[in-house]
Amino acid sequence: MDGKTVGILGGGQLGRMIVEAAHRLNIKTVILDAPDSPAMQINALDEHVAGSFKEYESILKLAEKADVLTVEIEHVDVEALKKVKEKFPKIEIYPLPETIKLIQDKYVQKEHLIKHGIAVTESVAVESNTEEALLKIGEEYGYPFMLKSRTLAYDGRGNFVVKDKSYCKQALEFLKDRPLYAEKWCPFTLELAVMVVRSIQGEVFAYPTVETIHKNNICHLVHAPARVPDTVATKASIAAKNAVKSFPGCGIFGVEMFLLPDGEILVNEIAPRPHNSGHYTIDACVTSQFEAHVRAVTGLPMPQGFTEFSTTTTNAIMLNILGDKETANKELEICRRALETPHASVYLYGKTTRPERKMGHINIVSSSMSDADSRLSYILGETTEIPESIQSKEQPLVGIIMGSDSDLPVMAVGARILKQFGVPFELTIVSAHRTPHRMAQYAIEAPQRGLKCIIAGAGGAAHLPGMVAAMTPLPVIGVPVKGSTLDGVDSLHSIVQMPRGIPVATVAINNSTNAALLAIRILGAVDSKWLTKMSQYMLNMENEVLGKAETLEDIGYEDYLVEKLKK
Amino acid sequence: MDGKTVGILGGGQLGRMIVEAAHRLNIKTVILDAPDSPAMQINALDEHVAGSFKEYESILKLAEKADVLTVEIEHVDVEALKKVKEKFPKIEIYPLPETIKLIQDKYVQKEHLIKHGIAVTESVAVESNTEEALLKIGEEYGYPFMLKSRTLAYDGRGNFVVKDKSYCKQALEFLKDRPLYAEKWCPFTLELAVMVVRSIQGEVFAYPTVETIHKNNICHLVHAPARVPDTVATKASIAAKNAVKSFPGCGIFGVEMFLLPDGEILVNEIAPRPHNSGHYTIDACVTSQFEAHVRAVTGLPMPQGFTEFSTTTTNAIMLNILGDKETANKELEICRRALETPHASVYLYGKTTRPERKMGHINIVSSSMSDADSRLSYILGETTEIPESIQSKEQPLVGIIMGSDSDLPVMAVGARILKQFGVPFELTIVSAHRTPHRMAQYAIEAPQRGLKCIIAGAGGAAHLPGMVAAMTPLPVIGVPVKGSTLDGVDSLHSIVQMPRGIPVATVAINNSTNAALLAIRILGAVDSKWLTKMSQYMLNMENEVLGKAETLEDIGYEDYLVEKLKK
Repeated sequence: MDGKTVGILGGGQLGRMIVEAAHRLNIKTVILDAPDSPAMQINALDEHVAGSFKEYESILKLAEKADVLTVEIEHVDVEALKKVKEKFPKIEIYPLPETIKLIQDKYVQKEHLIKHGIAVTESVAVESNTEEALLKIGEEYGYPFMLKSRTLAYDGRGNFVVKDKSYCKQALEFLKDRPLYAEKWCPFTLELAVMVVRSIQGEVFAYPTVETIHKNNICHLVHAPARVPDTVATKASIAAKNAVKSFPGCGIFGVEMFLLPDGEILVNEIAPRPHNSGHYTIDACVTSQFEAHVRAVTGLPMPQGFTEFSTTTTNAIMLNILGDKETANKELEICRRALETPHASVYLYGKTTRPERKMGHINIVSSSMSDADSRLSYILGETTEIPESIQSKEQPLVGIIMGSDSDLPVMAVGARILKQFGVPFELTIVSAHRTPHRMAQYAIEAPQRGLKCIIAGAGGAAHLPGMVAAMTPLPVIGVPVKGSTLDGVDSLHSIVQMPRGIPVATVAINNSTNAALLAIRILGAVDSKWLTKMSQYMLNMENEVLGKAETLEDIGYEDYLVEKLKK
Repeated sequence: MDGKTVGILGGGQLGRMIVEAAHRLNIKTVILDAPDSPAMQINALDEHVAGSFKEYESILKLAEKADVLTVEIEHVDVEALKKVKEKFPKIEIYPLPETIKLIQDKYVQKEHLIKHGIAVTESVAVESNTEEALLKIGEEYGYPFMLKSRTLAYDGRGNFVVKDKSYCKQALEFLKDRPLYAEKWCPFTLELAVMVVRSIQGEVFAYPTVETIHKNNICHLVHAPARVPDTVATKASIAAKNAVKSFPGCGIFGVEMFLLPDGEILVNEIAPRPHNSGHYTIDACVTSQFEAHVRAVTGLPMPQGFTEFSTTTTNAIMLNILGDKETANKELEICRRALETPHASVYLYGKTTRPERKMGHINIVSSSMSDADSRLSYILGETTEIPESIQSKEQPLVGIIMGSDSDLPVMAVGARILKQFGVPFELTIVSAHRTPHRMAQYAIEAPQRGLKCIIAGAGGAAHLPGMVAAMTPLPVIGVPVKGSTLDGVDSLHSIVQMPRGIPVATVAINNSTNAALLAIRILGAVDSKWLTKMSQYMLNMENEVLGKAETLEDIGYEDYLVEKLKK
């Protein structure tokens, strides 16, 4: 795509996935890492540099072969990068060495963010690694507080929870002579993360806000999008973009955040590279975080919106596959279950297994998060039932309910229409007056069960449609059923004259046919195949009437009437 | 994932994409083809075999390194494969050599399909390559008819249209001494294709039915799903599955079909390997055709439904990138425009450019086909306006119409609700009686313009909601507007008492609030965020009333009444 060769410091799984993305764009990549590292396995070049991204000599060798240098890990030799830039002024290095340096020391990173107006957890540098110093912090922050290594910390290695005074000694032993800082305890309700890619012009594009779940300090699950209100997701996205705007240069950044009980969002830390919380983008977004990074560092186009979900209904879960703690390769059982699960993909990194090592990940993609969750349960071995395909499963989309079986003759006509169109539906009796609790349960559970709309038939006082509508956010269609008195006008007015705030879609008296047809039109909003079917149905009606007109004109209205009366 | 090494005969783009899929599953692949072929570029092994898939010696060398052999092209030496199988009885070869042999000769393939009850175009073997023989066929089939090479034909190379008698000589010159067959002219309306993967147990799984568009006999575009009625798509899927069931062994197959004007489907030809018409699966389905093939030939799980679209709303277009006919690498301009387009991905194959050579492809994924089409227009250079992001563009989802501006005070209340919820909407005047043509156009175009539902307000005779509903498959919500006489009951009955066949979702008289809330509930079927917002709205209403109750109980009803009357 582009004449530039990209040199990558580090050939682990992140490097491997960068290489994969670059291949698809015909962009040449050269890797610096130990021989046969995951990224090198999928790149048939003789030019890779076997060495360490912490050594000047190796970085220099890589730079000789590349137009752009980038990293898959922030723990590289920044001074070496700066020297390389002096030696080869034309080489581009993204993220900028200064950015890497800022980020490498987590305490400096925090101070930088504070300076740029980004909310972070309160923290303080530990001046000397002594119990005395920690006790002083404990007095100020209270217990528990977090003691963290300022450098070389990842996946929780380098963090220690100081539960009370007595833990100070143990904390210092655990973290040894590393430079430390202390963080006030942050009682977050959720951890959020946003991948942000920055162009060389300084434009930033955020991927969707996701929710991360850690286990033993290692990323375990990512839910995309995060299961939080829109305003929270947007707030997180803005915080992440502002944080990344504070770093010049370009490339992808992973921003990890805490959501506090009061809705406040604090930035926890930033990675200047692809990030585990962004692996879901490979399947859930058209442009993965890896391709976004490649585009950024090589100056390829990054249009508005290229970091979105592929479709408006995409939901995804990412599960990390860690080396089994006891039996080598036992983690492959999880992978096998994933392969047995429709709508799940397995990504293995070509590494030798070791306990707790990140061996690969699994992405699950679906139109609904609850469906993705049920697939996850199978993959994790929590259930033995393989989740069905999402397309073919006949999960009811429409629920038909009525107050009494006396309404069934009227309501069955609508059910037949749904059957004729092939709409999965359910039908049952729910009485507002005789089974009020059942009605409440039905209304409340309907959205979770995947219903997209409810058709409720009722006669007389006809409270069912309105009461169900009052307890569910789904659209409710009301069918006034004609009783033995008042011609059904009582039911019609009862159903249609709902107060402002709670709508019921009312159809004609006894006309459950139209209720069913309306339900199908509503489903058309989800899947245009229903609109196609509806158009066909309307065309057939038109043809039927045109046929009758032709016959009538053909045989004359007198004969036609005779024929009609015979039927 | 699995201990097996897969040897691939052929290292072109199809082999390359097989290798990519295998990498993700930690499955080792070894390739037989010319050195530095596209597939070898992304596989850092010393063990690849530089040679030809038409030579026994090379195939033997590959077989020595592999547990399973497969192909990315059907023009391989079948006899060599059979000998290899004799020499290494434990090696698995998929597709089976017998299947490849059957398929290599297109006329034999056709006879095989006919024997298995698959409908194909009528054809006959050309007994001798003479004008006489062709004239005889012309007499029987009429002109034009197709003259085709039985072997080594692809991308239209090996096809000749015999337009009339005078073309016979030219046809024989063009096709030289190749074994030929003639095919009756097939006046198809569309070309369809289905990728089918077969497990070693003989189970077959079909990918969605797609529509292919050829240009100069080379695949140009693929629309997935095909823009045909469900019954046609299902029929094509069944035909493709039946065709593939007739071949023992396992692996992926591409089935190309013709759709005739009467709805009949004829199988055109079958490829026993990944196929150009299945490239869309990389982005549109969780499991790509390449991974499906790897799973099939290595015996990994293939659950029901694993070949579906990732979400129920996936629509995709694939565009082939061919080497520019005049200027080397000019095709990269198409790629650059694709990179400028959100929701498009570029796949380049690492080949040197040549006119008309398949250099790569572009996948576009969206929730709607018309959106995908507009992205395609930009990529093809037919428009210069970069399509907006699908998520953020404020394309109206709801249309509010009314018969007269006198209805505006009533309808504006609903508009405010939509605004409050952040629903993109449009509002205009459309009169059933005064602008009947405008009404028809509005109703007919609404689905194409992306509207998900229409709110129509009308008073008096109140024909607008019902007439619009009669001309659109979208759900229509009717608001009876109270006139100066009859209290709005006239409008209510006019709107709600629609005949069977055409539903209007009717709300209370003057209650456009409820119409808007109903529209939002309907949008909830598309995107659950609207349901979340609706639940929040309902909760707020509840809290408001609970607050009033508290005040009332607190200050007593007498004082409360006094306060209320003051307002």
